[in-house]
Amino acid sequence: MATITKVSPLAPARFPDLPQLGGVRFATAAAGVKYAGRTDVMLAVLDAGTSVAGVFTRSSTRAAPVLDCQQKLGGDNTGPAAILVNSGNANAFTGHYGQISVAEVTKAVAETTGVPEARVFTASTGVIGEPLPHDRIVSQITDLNAGLSGDAIEAAAQAIMTTDTFAKGASAQVEVDGKTVSIAGIAKGSGMIAPDMATMLVYIFTDAGYDQAALQGAVSAMADRTFNCITVDSDTSTSDSLLVCATGAAGVDATGNAGFDAALERVMRELAHLVVRDGEGATKFIEIRVTGAVSDAEAKTHGLSVANSPLVKTAIAGEDANWGRVVMAIGKSGAAADRDRLSISFGDILVAEKGWVSPNYREEDAAAYMKAQDLVIAIDLGLGSGAATVWTCDLTHGYIEINADYRS
Amino acid sequence: MATITKVSPLAPARFPDLPQLGGVRFATAAAGVKYAGRTDVMLAVLDAGTSVAGVFTRSSTRAAPVLDCQQKLGGDNTGPAAILVNSGNANAFTGHYGQISVAEVTKAVAETTGVPEARVFTASTGVIGEPLPHDRIVSQITDLNAGLSGDAIEAAAQAIMTTDTFAKGASAQVEVDGKTVSIAGIAKGSGMIAPDMATMLVYIFTDAGYDQAALQGAVSAMADRTFNCITVDSDTSTSDSLLVCATGAAGVDATGNAGFDAALERVMRELAHLVVRDGEGATKFIEIRVTGAVSDAEAKTHGLSVANSPLVKTAIAGEDANWGRVVMAIGKSGAAADRDRLSISFGDILVAEKGWVSPNYREEDAAAYMKAQDLVIAIDLGLGSGAATVWTCDLTHGYIEINADYRS
Repeated sequence: MATITKVSPLAPARFPDLPQLGGVRFATAAAGVKYAGRTDVMLAVLDAGTSVAGVFTRSSTRAAPVLDCQQKLGGDNTGPAAILVNSGNANAFTGHYGQISVAEVTKAVAETTGVPEARVFTASTGVIGEPLPHDRIVSQITDLNAGLSGDAIEAAAQAIMTTDTFAKGASAQVEVDGKTVSIAGIAKGSGMIAPDMATMLVYIFTDAGYDQAALQGAVSAMADRTFNCITVDSDTSTSDSLLVCATGAAGVDATGNAGFDAALERVMRELAHLVVRDGEGATKFIEIRVTGAVSDAEAKTHGLSVANSPLVKTAIAGEDANWGRVVMAIGKSGAAADRDRLSISFGDILVAEKGWVSPNYREEDAAAYMKAQDLVIAIDLGLGSGAATVWTCDLTHGYIEINADYRS
Repeated sequence: MATITKVSPLAPARFPDLPQLGGVRFATAAAGVKYAGRTDVMLAVLDAGTSVAGVFTRSSTRAAPVLDCQQKLGGDNTGPAAILVNSGNANAFTGHYGQISVAEVTKAVAETTGVPEARVFTASTGVIGEPLPHDRIVSQITDLNAGLSGDAIEAAAQAIMTTDTFAKGASAQVEVDGKTVSIAGIAKGSGMIAPDMATMLVYIFTDAGYDQAALQGAVSAMADRTFNCITVDSDTSTSDSLLVCATGAAGVDATGNAGFDAALERVMRELAHLVVRDGEGATKFIEIRVTGAVSDAEAKTHGLSVANSPLVKTAIAGEDANWGRVVMAIGKSGAAADRDRLSISFGDILVAEKGWVSPNYREEDAAAYMKAQDLVIAIDLGLGSGAATVWTCDLTHGYIEINADYRS
């Protein structure tokens, strides 16, 4: 396990003040799953009637806890619910033993907290292919249950970190039917980040009520525009999980409320951006805006092709306005493009148009722009009205350092 | 332009002795297109009746010379033919001006050599988006034509290099109808290497005769199994071009001859491997053999997903037998996989089987194996009879050094 000592230069100054929400309590423990001297297990317990929606990795080699959560999602939500997460070991590619670990942890949580087993959701994140020492987690459940508290969400965000260099949280408050409801979420993720559920682990809570089936539909659509639009390294985790829990403790039903939905999507987008800002080795945060594509889906294909191109990402690391590599990445994406209708801007600087460099382009302007920490690359294909925005970071020596040495 | 001083540790000891072939002559010149103090233009002139087949990048932003070659391919082959290549500037994304450059160079070659314009094939490789200073090339054509020689193929291989750290050549000799015919090829390529014609520039010559239409069919199929099975960085060039020229000077028709076809494919595979061995920053050559897939196409999808995974490639750079990342890359590929039927070997070491680590696996064996320069990762999906082999290199600090600083 690499020792990550430096905090990402793109990290926010501090963890945000998150609102305390009715209906959810947290606790953390140091179970020694893999790491020493830090917390590595978090438990969240949710009041009876909480709606739970989820989105998971589409990997065909997904981890045992993911398969278990997918089976449980959408069931009866009259009882309470619980979320148990460990870091340090992904319980992925661990065969039949992996299922036993999930069952043992789930059973212990259910017996101790009184939550039905069918509403205990687990997740594991860390190394792949090693047996999860689930006894160490089980032995902490009684203490975790005794320590549950409504104001421990920051501790929860810390306990789920692996190669993350900072804990990630975001929140929103919004009026629904004249009452203020709150949304608070935490996330972990730094490498092995790419769409098809690029979240790593994300838990979002609200004290609003929300019909469970409707919540699932809304969250799936929002995930496609937020977590599924980020990429650090094009690699998709076996463990990615997002759960959104609506406790209803505020006494307001937000089902289908446009203002609430917008606030929830804002929180999801902010957490997705924080994952990119903690991208392994990242020194630049890059927004890629694609317009004029044949369809939204083709716009996203182009955007991700640029965002995943090692040559684009290394050029940005070198603060090089190498727009030729952007052209290359559009050309290879497989989505429709006409070289002679393409225009590319870096920030407000029009770099290329109609198949060649813009007549007003001055390389020194672009070179100055590339020194910024947050960059926007805008691509207009000039073909239709399809649009998408994706986010990524640069590819640096830091990524190689972290990943050429992670496991040994 | 980065100064590349070190030769790849995976380079062969020296350029091979290539057989001299009847019907083709070469010349090189230092035109100063971009580089100083080295050759950067090569001319090859082929005798009347030479069959020419080609495969090109599928990029939608492909360069002007590629579009020109694609138009010319398959035409009447009774007259002589010529190939003119420059390094240092790709003449890609240069709008209408790019076509003018191709026309000017083509016209000059045709007028000086007597080759019909419809049989003058050009290629340009280097930086994207800058106008090609074609006058510098045109001014060299007379000298190039005067200097044509049958034994200058190594000089030709040197003149087409960009970030390559060594010149690449391969050959074969084979009996057809009791006569020995020869095949000799050269290639350049080091970065921006990924399938959909991952060749960069490759020129292969034979003194056998071969029906032009049949040659095109054979070469396209062979490219899918050789050049389209290599990847350095998943980025696809705007300029990739492969031409195979059969002069017929040996007085033998090899059309459809199985022995000849096998020899030609061997030369193509060897040149493809040399491109990977010169992959930017490469320290390991990796063969990924996929079997048991639902189809050959799905096997290739899995193989390329592993070969393009930054996490797999950095683990190999760190000599870390991190097979969990191989599992991850199979899981994300989108092709069919069943976690519990999957087996993975590193060399002869069975690492994982039936969804978990193999009971006989000892990490110290795999760690010792990973220190080798040439590695084989074998993946059996246990689903069907689809198979494919792809080749790649590791991802190191060297790649970041070369590419974070290439253009500025």
